[in-house]
Amino acid sequence: MDFLRGVDESATGGPKSSVATDAIKSRLAAGEAGFSATVRGMVHTIRDIGEVAFVILRLSRELVQCVYEEGVTGFDIKNLKEESAVEVTGTVNAERRAPQGFEIRLKTIRALSEPAAPLPIAISKWKLGTSLETKLELRPIILRNTRERAKFKLQEGIVRAFRDYLLGQGFTEIHTPKIVAKGAEGGANVFRLDYFNKKAELGQSPQFYKQMMVGVYGRVFEAAPVFRAEKHNTTRHLNEYVSLDFEMGFIDSFTDVMDMETGFLQYMRALLEAEYAQELRLLGVALPDVSRIPMVRFDEAKRLVSEKYSRPIRNPYDLEPEEEQLIGRYFQEEHGSEFVFVTHYPTKKRPFYAMDDPEDARFTLSFDLLFRGLEVTTGGQRVHGYSEILRKAQLKGLDPDGMGDYLSIFKYGMPPHGGLGLGLERLAMRLLDETNVREAALFPRDVNRLEP
Amino acid sequence: MDFLRGVDESATGGPKSSVATDAIKSRLAAGEAGFSATVRGMVHTIRDIGEVAFVILRLSRELVQCVYEEGVTGFDIKNLKEESAVEVTGTVNAERRAPQGFEIRLKTIRALSEPAAPLPIAISKWKLGTSLETKLELRPIILRNTRERAKFKLQEGIVRAFRDYLLGQGFTEIHTPKIVAKGAEGGANVFRLDYFNKKAELGQSPQFYKQMMVGVYGRVFEAAPVFRAEKHNTTRHLNEYVSLDFEMGFIDSFTDVMDMETGFLQYMRALLEAEYAQELRLLGVALPDVSRIPMVRFDEAKRLVSEKYSRPIRNPYDLEPEEEQLIGRYFQEEHGSEFVFVTHYPTKKRPFYAMDDPEDARFTLSFDLLFRGLEVTTGGQRVHGYSEILRKAQLKGLDPDGMGDYLSIFKYGMPPHGGLGLGLERLAMRLLDETNVREAALFPRDVNRLEP
Repeated sequence: MDFLRGVDESATGGPKSSVATDAIKSRLAAGEAGFSATVRGMVHTIRDIGEVAFVILRLSRELVQCVYEEGVTGFDIKNLKEESAVEVTGTVNAERRAPQGFEIRLKTIRALSEPAAPLPIAISKWKLGTSLETKLELRPIILRNTRERAKFKLQEGIVRAFRDYLLGQGFTEIHTPKIVAKGAEGGANVFRLDYFNKKAELGQSPQFYKQMMVGVYGRVFEAAPVFRAEKHNTTRHLNEYVSLDFEMGFIDSFTDVMDMETGFLQYMRALLEAEYAQELRLLGVALPDVSRIPMVRFDEAKRLVSEKYSRPIRNPYDLEPEEEQLIGRYFQEEHGSEFVFVTHYPTKKRPFYAMDDPEDARFTLSFDLLFRGLEVTTGGQRVHGYSEILRKAQLKGLDPDGMGDYLSIFKYGMPPHGGLGLGLERLAMRLLDETNVREAALFPRDVNRLEP
Repeated sequence: MDFLRGVDESATGGPKSSVATDAIKSRLAAGEAGFSATVRGMVHTIRDIGEVAFVILRLSRELVQCVYEEGVTGFDIKNLKEESAVEVTGTVNAERRAPQGFEIRLKTIRALSEPAAPLPIAISKWKLGTSLETKLELRPIILRNTRERAKFKLQEGIVRAFRDYLLGQGFTEIHTPKIVAKGAEGGANVFRLDYFNKKAELGQSPQFYKQMMVGVYGRVFEAAPVFRAEKHNTTRHLNEYVSLDFEMGFIDSFTDVMDMETGFLQYMRALLEAEYAQELRLLGVALPDVSRIPMVRFDEAKRLVSEKYSRPIRNPYDLEPEEEQLIGRYFQEEHGSEFVFVTHYPTKKRPFYAMDDPEDARFTLSFDLLFRGLEVTTGGQRVHGYSEILRKAQLKGLDPDGMGDYLSIFKYGMPPHGGLGLGLERLAMRLLDETNVREAALFPRDVNRLEP
């Protein structure tokens, strides 16, 4: 009988790439040189310059420069292909010009696998210089480009910061269902499916469930996919995206929710600086200042940009995308902030569960967060009283019979609460200074795109 | 202009409940007594015994005992309702018999909200003593029971351990799409939907996408919902569940994948012990020994239980649920382990991407992990060669034209790799010693259940 005792590096699939690199760097920093190391990775490029060839290996986060020498390295370079998986062993020395500050003079190369065909596009180029359409068509291969993959490594960091920060603030992580009963949240933009002969939909947001869970844990969050069947084919819409949601009970004001988001953004900035510095450097990302974020009322914001940019207010109850951009520009110019909270959205533009402003019921205790002129978050305080939620649902023409489970939480008692939803890809798009949200979506889903 | 500067406790929605409790305990441990504290929570129960009443508050993870005294507490207890949200202030003293080892003698109670109706079921009872059906019907309220919610707090810990352990092992977290093209992975048990006049499905697993991402990052993981339209209505099937998936490149053997899972289980055990002790205690959960996990070949396992329990082998290529239970029992009895890896599943029972055993192509380099006789994980080494994946796809009668994106990764080079999928609710069900997986699902989806 064999037994498994868990991971140690000798027993498992070779050294973890970044860890192997870290170990090498530590030894170099300690003054060692000329020591032997073994590394596994994909052959990213081969630059053959006669009796010497530079073999660049692609590891999980970094590129490592290896030097092949005819007669020294026990392998025929002619048999080495780009996108082969290899294990190499060689001698490590510092090399200022190499990507990681060292290079490995190869003694042996062992091919672990080989491709069947050369790449259809040179993914090792620094910038791909190809159309977005091609980048999306060839997504599984294109993502092997170091800049492309760095974008999604940064997204790991954003989601990690979201979870870690909220766990530290006493939140509980939840996993709510994505297949939901018809009409759970109303609205037209839903994907419908047949669920064992019942009409079902894909969740547009975890709104109802996270509110239910506020009654259970007080503070909850979820990072999970949401689905919107919107027919918009714009640079900022996706039909499936990752929503970072939280909901918190026992608030004194909807500004508590904004405070919590500000705290998250500050934590995110610190985490990305500390643990994702190589990706930030690779992509040339300058993290925004989030030490303080201005806030402005919806109607005031409209007035300010109308005056400053001589733009007539067409609809006092709606924000056009261009107005959002101008609000972003205004707060950049006037207050040096790339973020701005726009508060007190009109009641008619917010869902029924948004709490009305007690001082003026035409507006709600809600907000959007704009980042460089793009809405990345919608949030606010929610109704918590039973009669009030019934009243507001009826005002919107919703049928209370279809939402008994949701309404029950108010009937049996809910604390004052609020929360928000943050679109991961939109936040990433702005951080990365991309002009199309698809650049920040791993496998984007849009009106025309269902594959890969 | 106002600015937000992020969270500090004075600015936001009152003290975080568990943090407030921790602070109180620290002060008591340091010898302080009779100090004033303010806490917010839901009124879990009121036990009125004349001039004194015990008011038990429900905070995010714990119950706190408060003592109301007529004439001392500035509030009329008659006006206090269970499931009201309150802020209380009072004097803290150690009290051995109270749930947290202290109680608060109340000076003031401030009601933040009130329910509209009394609870339909006494959720404050220690054990609910109601049917599973009722528990699921009243889910949003039932989860306020301290034992019910503790089950899902533990699930937070499981998922957290999965992520933290794998991040520490050089994995990258990914978010793959759940709406996929028709026929992406084959199989009958898929939920279908119309995607802008294209035929789409809900992902049964992130298998194809995580393999694509192995070519990008080497090691990847995802914790996300998967969807199975299976009509089974059993105690162990859900139609939507949380799948903990990882996939790792550069492996030497499929046992590397089992090693990694064993390492995760060890880490999970340590994390739950360290940070979820109160939930473990509340639920009486004894964590299983995972210091070593036995492994046994599929055919050998069948033979062992057939001999020991005098059970004829009906089908040499399939494991019946009863056989799984007996294998679990065998390894508990013979080796004292609640876990067992069953390896080398028959090729005809595994998907086309499973790697055949080079020593006997009737079997695969794959495994299931059984926990107390229930399959909680399926994994193994995957095919990485282009011609081999084509051959195996064709053997299974799959149309390569429908999987061009997936096949392209093999064409252009993939490292040897393997991975697994672990069902969160099943693992939790076994940890919690529940007999029905629905007890371990927050809002279960089954053949008959789409709400709440």
